[in-house]
Order: sequence, then C-alpha cells, then structure tokens
Amino acid sequence: MSIPDAQIFPHATGAAGPTVDQHQTPQDLIFHAGWFCPFVQRVWIALEERGIPYEYKEVNPYKKEPRFLELNPKGLVPAFEYRGQALYESLIMCEFLEDAFPSHRPALLPADPVLRGRVRIWADFVNKTISTSFTRTLMAQDPAAQAASLQELYTGIRTFVAEVKGPYFLGDEFSLADVAIAPWIVRDYILQEHRGYDRAAVGVDWTEYADRIVARESITKTTSEKDKMEGIWGRYLRDEAMSEGTKAIRAGRPF
Amino acid sequence: MSIPDAQIFPHATGAAGPTVDQHQTPQDLIFHAGWFCPFVQRVWIALEERGIPYEYKEVNPYKKEPRFLELNPKGLVPAFEYRGQALYESLIMCEFLEDAFPSHRPALLPADPVLRGRVRIWADFVNKTISTSFTRTLMAQDPAAQAASLQELYTGIRTFVAEVKGPYFLGDEFSLADVAIAPWIVRDYILQEHRGYDRAAVGVDWTEYADRIVARESITKTTSEKDKMEGIWGRYLRDEAMSEGTKAIRAGRPF
Repeated sequence: MSIPDAQIFPHATGAAGPTVDQHQTPQDLIFHAGWFCPFVQRVWIALEERGIPYEYKEVNPYKKEPRFLELNPKGLVPAFEYRGQALYESLIMCEFLEDAFPSHRPALLPADPVLRGRVRIWADFVNKTISTSFTRTLMAQDPAAQAASLQELYTGIRTFVAEVKGPYFLGDEFSLADVAIAPWIVRDYILQEHRGYDRAAVGVDWTEYADRIVARESITKTTSEKDKMEGIWGRYLRDEAMSEGTKAIRAGRPF
Repeated sequence: MSIPDAQIFPHATGAAGPTVDQHQTPQDLIFHAGWFCPFVQRVWIALEERGIPYEYKEVNPYKKEPRFLELNPKGLVPAFEYRGQALYESLIMCEFLEDAFPSHRPALLPADPVLRGRVRIWADFVNKTISTSFTRTLMAQDPAAQAASLQELYTGIRTFVAEVKGPYFLGDEFSLADVAIAPWIVRDYILQEHRGYDRAAVGVDWTEYADRIVARESITKTTSEKDKMEGIWGRYLRDEAMSEGTKAIRAGRPF
C-alpha cells in the first residue's frame, strides 16, 4: 500500500481556491478544514451562506500540527478554534454559527421551533442514512454488496426527497437540511462512474433538487476540481480509506 | 418466542406513577411515551426539570393507535405532538423544548455558544458511544463478546467522565449532557446483575457522578420500579429485542 499522505492533493482548487485565498486574514474564528471532506464542506457552506468572517486553515490529515492536536485531541476536521476553544462535528459547528453569529443572515435554522426540529431531524437523517450508505456503497468490493448498498442509498434519498417542499427542503428558504445533504450530491459522480448510481433512477424530484443544489453559489465556491480527488477516491474504492467514518462503517459502529 | 407485548408491563410505576397521573390534562404539548424507554426518559427529565406543561400518553409499542401512526409514520417514541405536528428523536425534542419554551427555567443548554456546542458534542457522544455499547453488552451472548463490549463501555464512560467538571457536566449547572446520559445510569444495574459491570471499575469520579444523577428529583420521578422491567430486559439479555436500536446494532448501522 502506498503512503497515504502522498496521495492527497494538498490544497483546494477550482472555484474553492479563491475562496480559501480570501480567508487567510487572522480572525477570531479559525476554520480547520480539509478541502476534500464532505463534512468540512457543510460547515464551509454555512460560513459562506451567512457571510461570517473566518480564517481558513488546511489541515493535512496525515501531518497534523502539534498545536492543532493539543486543542483538538482527536485531530478531527472540520474543527473550529474560537478564542482558544475547539469545537467539532459538522452539524454542531453549524448550530454554533447560528448561536454565535445571530445577526449574520440568512439563518440556516428557521425561527419556528417545530420547523427547527424538522430541519434537525432530516439533517440527522442524512448523517445516519444517506452519508453512511453513500460511503458503504463506495467501499463495497463485492458486486452484490455494492448493489445492495446502492438500493439502500436510493431508499434513503427517496425518503429525504419526499420531505423536500421545493425548491429547497423548507420551501424557498435554504436551510441546514439542504446544507447537510449538499456535499454528497456534489460527490455523487463517483458512484455514477464506479457503482452504477444514477440520479434519474431515484426520480425526477431528486434530479431537479440535485441540480439546484450543485448550482448554488455557496456550494460551487467551496467545491474543488474533480480530478484532484482521484487519490482519495481510489482509497475508498479499494476499501483502503482509514478515516474515522470508514473505520466505523467497517466495524458496524455509529460515527 | 412468547408474544412480545404480553411481556411489557403496561404503565409507569413507583415514583413515575404519580408523575404520569399529574399530566393527564389536555395540553398543547402531547408527550407520546413508553415508561421503560431510556430515550423517553431523557425527554421526560427535560420536561420535569423545566416545568413545561405536557400531557403524558403511554404508547404500547406493539399496539400503536392509528392516529399516532398517521402523525408519526415510523411510530417511534418518544414523540411530541404539538399543535398537530410531530417531532421525534430524543435530543432534538429536548432542543425543541429549549426553543419553544424559552421562559421556562432552567435552560438545559447554556447561553454561551461554545458551551452549547460542547454540551451538544457530549450528548451526541453518549448516543454514538455509551448508549450503543451499553445495549451491545446487554445483547451479546458469547462471554468474550460480552467482555469486549463491556470494556468498550468502560472506555466510553471514562472519556465522558474526564469531561465532567463536577458536580454536573458543566459544573453547578445541570445540562443536556447530563440528561443524555442519565437514563443509562438509572439502568446500569442490569449490566451489573448480568454482565459483570461495576461502577467502581470505571473510577471514583464516575461512582460519585452516577450517585448524584440517580438522586436528582427529575430523574427519580421519571423512574419506574425495577421489577416491572424484567420482561423487557429478558428480551435484551436473550438478544430477542426488536427495537429500532437493537435492529440497527445487529446490522451494524447507526440509529
């Protein structure tokens, strides 16, 4: 097996390149990120949607700086460093942005308590169902297991889409439920190329929703060039990836 | 295998009996509950801590009413029905109570955004790590698997306890992190009786924290008599339980 860090392209490219360049000034809020990571992209989308000032720091997952590990012992990205304190977990980081920067609009959680609950339920559903079956499909080596995982992914997506009011999850308002699923839509080409995934097989509502998501500015400007992902995808497709998520999926554990 | 619903005692007992009796008046907030369920108890603790008016409805998990299923198609408890809308997922329901009843004190999420994030991270940790390894230990049939799960549980608890400032998670303030873990402390006698669990083996900080939690009023008044749990525990101990959580654990899926 080759050395893992040698396979990871070191920085954001494409439309995400200038976004990184524009966020190099020191700020109270430091965003420890990995340009390729879907969980990072969620937080990045939230930051960009709401125009929150942040300092972007690329973390090489195989060469983590001692200062970063001291603050954040598990060494996970995405992570925030805010006035010397660390926070991680992508959806919790997005909630933090709502709490800490209430004057930055638009909010990604609606004002109505029931709707906030609904958005949280469906963002959590993406974590438990869609992101795990996406990764499981990618990691599956046996064609029968690939096909079974793909059907599970389709079922999960259909369940989600049935809740989308349109054009976005809540209607006109773009919310944390859309943020939660967006990075997997951005990356679904890899399943199309290698695992027989087809947006149209899910249904026309999904195709239209997916087109709308990938075209949104906060999402395009946090997306790097596909060809730089090759080294990373190769590790997933050969089931050699060693992220926390892939280790948990192999062990049959929540993550 | 015997008929599952015949084994479930039909209502709360002990100190939880009068708590149910005091919450039978119709209210805007209907709490669909199962007296024995740890996820239900979380929400119940939050309601009692904050003195929120609610109507308690016991749901027989094997004889769900059509009206309940119409509102909440997955039929999960705990669930809220609030002005005709349904919410589920215990931690999300607790967040809803914070959002919908801000004037009811004490809040279970602190005001400081970083601390709110920390409380959410550790409540989520209880879900992903402690509650699943608790249930896995209970379900394990092979002694080696039981011992391995128990060590995993100990590791999870030690990781949590290292973050407890004392007397409660955040210090003097009782928060959602304490609420999240409490129902598993209340129920740990079953692991002690059948799987060799010992609070003292985790460490003195845990023993003291656990004693403090089980003595708290919101927790005692939502706890039923242990002997009424026998039918339920038996199904777990023989690995015959069919809750969403146990099915997910068997399949190696998040839930």
